[in-house]
Amino acid sequence: MASERVRPIRRDGEGGVEIIDQTLLPHVFAMRRLGTLEDAAESIETMRVRGAPLIGATAAYGVALAMAADASDAGLEAARARLARTRPTAINLLWALDEMRAHLAPLPAAARAAAALVRADEIAEEDVAICAAIGWHGLAIFRDLLAKKPAGARLNVLTHCNAGRLATVDWGTATAPIYMAHDAGLPIHVWVDETRPRNQGASLTAWELAERGVPHTVIPDNTGGHLMQHGMVDVVVVGTDRTTAQGDVCNKIGTYLKALAAHDNGVPFYVALPSPTIDFRVDDGVAEIPIEERGGEEVSHIAGMTADGRVEAVRIVPEGARVANYAFDVTPARLIAGLVTERGVIAANRAALVAAFPEAARAAGRIG
Amino acid sequence: MASERVRPIRRDGEGGVEIIDQTLLPHVFAMRRLGTLEDAAESIETMRVRGAPLIGATAAYGVALAMAADASDAGLEAARARLARTRPTAINLLWALDEMRAHLAPLPAAARAAAALVRADEIAEEDVAICAAIGWHGLAIFRDLLAKKPAGARLNVLTHCNAGRLATVDWGTATAPIYMAHDAGLPIHVWVDETRPRNQGASLTAWELAERGVPHTVIPDNTGGHLMQHGMVDVVVVGTDRTTAQGDVCNKIGTYLKALAAHDNGVPFYVALPSPTIDFRVDDGVAEIPIEERGGEEVSHIAGMTADGRVEAVRIVPEGARVANYAFDVTPARLIAGLVTERGVIAANRAALVAAFPEAARAAGRIG
Repeated sequence: MASERVRPIRRDGEGGVEIIDQTLLPHVFAMRRLGTLEDAAESIETMRVRGAPLIGATAAYGVALAMAADASDAGLEAARARLARTRPTAINLLWALDEMRAHLAPLPAAARAAAALVRADEIAEEDVAICAAIGWHGLAIFRDLLAKKPAGARLNVLTHCNAGRLATVDWGTATAPIYMAHDAGLPIHVWVDETRPRNQGASLTAWELAERGVPHTVIPDNTGGHLMQHGMVDVVVVGTDRTTAQGDVCNKIGTYLKALAAHDNGVPFYVALPSPTIDFRVDDGVAEIPIEERGGEEVSHIAGMTADGRVEAVRIVPEGARVANYAFDVTPARLIAGLVTERGVIAANRAALVAAFPEAARAAGRIG
Repeated sequence: MASERVRPIRRDGEGGVEIIDQTLLPHVFAMRRLGTLEDAAESIETMRVRGAPLIGATAAYGVALAMAADASDAGLEAARARLARTRPTAINLLWALDEMRAHLAPLPAAARAAAALVRADEIAEEDVAICAAIGWHGLAIFRDLLAKKPAGARLNVLTHCNAGRLATVDWGTATAPIYMAHDAGLPIHVWVDETRPRNQGASLTAWELAERGVPHTVIPDNTGGHLMQHGMVDVVVVGTDRTTAQGDVCNKIGTYLKALAAHDNGVPFYVALPSPTIDFRVDDGVAEIPIEERGGEEVSHIAGMTADGRVEAVRIVPEGARVANYAFDVTPARLIAGLVTERGVIAANRAALVAAFPEAARAAGRIG
């Protein structure tokens, strides 16, 4: 079931791991070796790896790399602390770190390095399985929507940012049903929000859809409302960095605007939701989730390829202009048609989330 | 009342006109001479001049330049036809061309060149007066909103694209109340949507706000919804390229998304509306207004300044990626708190528009 492409994170056979350096895409494809805890932390902070599930997997491998150097209790706690502060919003990060600590803490120090690699591998494979399941459930939605269209008409899917295979270990979350539909021969076309300021749509989603031959069109983030007003979008599917107990979804900045437009135009808005991104300790996403503010140069400068083939950053605001860079926003549950989880498509509300993931709700102390 | 800055279009004293070449901003400030009809048409097409009111004024001067070369009836019609096809959406363009033709057609050919310059000057000065009046009416809104805030708190205004002085002959439309509030010493801060794909906010609005010393922050277009959810926007003011008889507003792509967010968060959304942008012949903006599609390179490439001071365009999508570039969208009247016109702030509906501008409604055959 896995794709045949190079995974964005994998073991390198020498005790380390290697990643696709996503900051170089779409212009340069290059692997980068992570040999130490600090390598892993830096790669998360600088977004060489990004996307909530991939951040979780990278953090797990980061703990494994730390254990190879210092498998003491202090080393384990230090690794957890270092990785936990790399990105403030993605809940998978904390989930993966808690998983690793719970698994390693009871073991003797001498056993931790090997066990950590095994558990990190498991976390990575669990992610692949979760994404594949999301794909199957999402594919059923796509089939239903296509059945309502004239024969031969293509299904137009809009997505924001990159909740693609590059955001996970494989398949992606929002892209999993897209890839499965395409592989099944269904006529599908994807509107790709470029996703300012970091352009993950233009640089990553467009790249991976092209890699797989899925028809797609890159659009400025401003465009989706117009397309929906004119019946040019059949369904929206996005990912999530954190989903609250009441079904609010924290995802890349701008997601909320697309959800509003979808709601205003009767376009179903789905969120592909791997369960590790559920945070049962949080209810009201707008009020409670801290939103990461990133450096202004991500807004003021854009990197791209020059006519003579160099990758160069250019400044697009007046010199000295003040900018703001909020990385995420929260889409209220009321705007969401459904959460596409590895256990099926569920409503975006507390009862449905608790019913589908009782063990996670229980672990968070939300049910007895 | 006029600003002391260089107007974006002015007579050059030698029978021609000169413009600020806005495609070079914010990195280079340069005037460009328009000596012929074709110069004027090219400047509109390539967006050296842009913004509905400034397009109208430039078209009027373009007719005048044409009359200096060929003042025959055929010359007048040819000038009108050439200029009318430069941009499909802005209604001011057609309004200005109709004004010029109505004024010039009855005159003997020998009198047309001089008369055309006089009438073009009048159209330009009328635009300045309209914008100033919009400014005064908008300022009253700002004062009311500030009165509801704690003493000393600043008023946070969000605007999209450039409905600034560079989009008009002077003052701007959406910016007129901002400049007047700032000049009056009111504490005001502007969130500037960068406005992909052409970045008129980042490159033009930020530039002219800085020129005038108005505090402002450039944000990706994705950001406004998040800011509104958190009470960080008090009011939205945007311009319009065409307003329908029922109060729908066609403006830069992405405006609709901000109107949805404003509506969802109880933030008043105002449209600064010079009456020449009203099109009483159109009712349903979404269904009836043709939306200009522009070249894909505006999406796939971004121009900016390199670290060593060169202006260079870089490609930000994978090589060969398909892109779409819709220039405008339509904001339904139901989302608009008010239309700030030169005759006061009116509701976004047919009755209010006809009551405020009966002569225009009558000219369009909409009232007897």
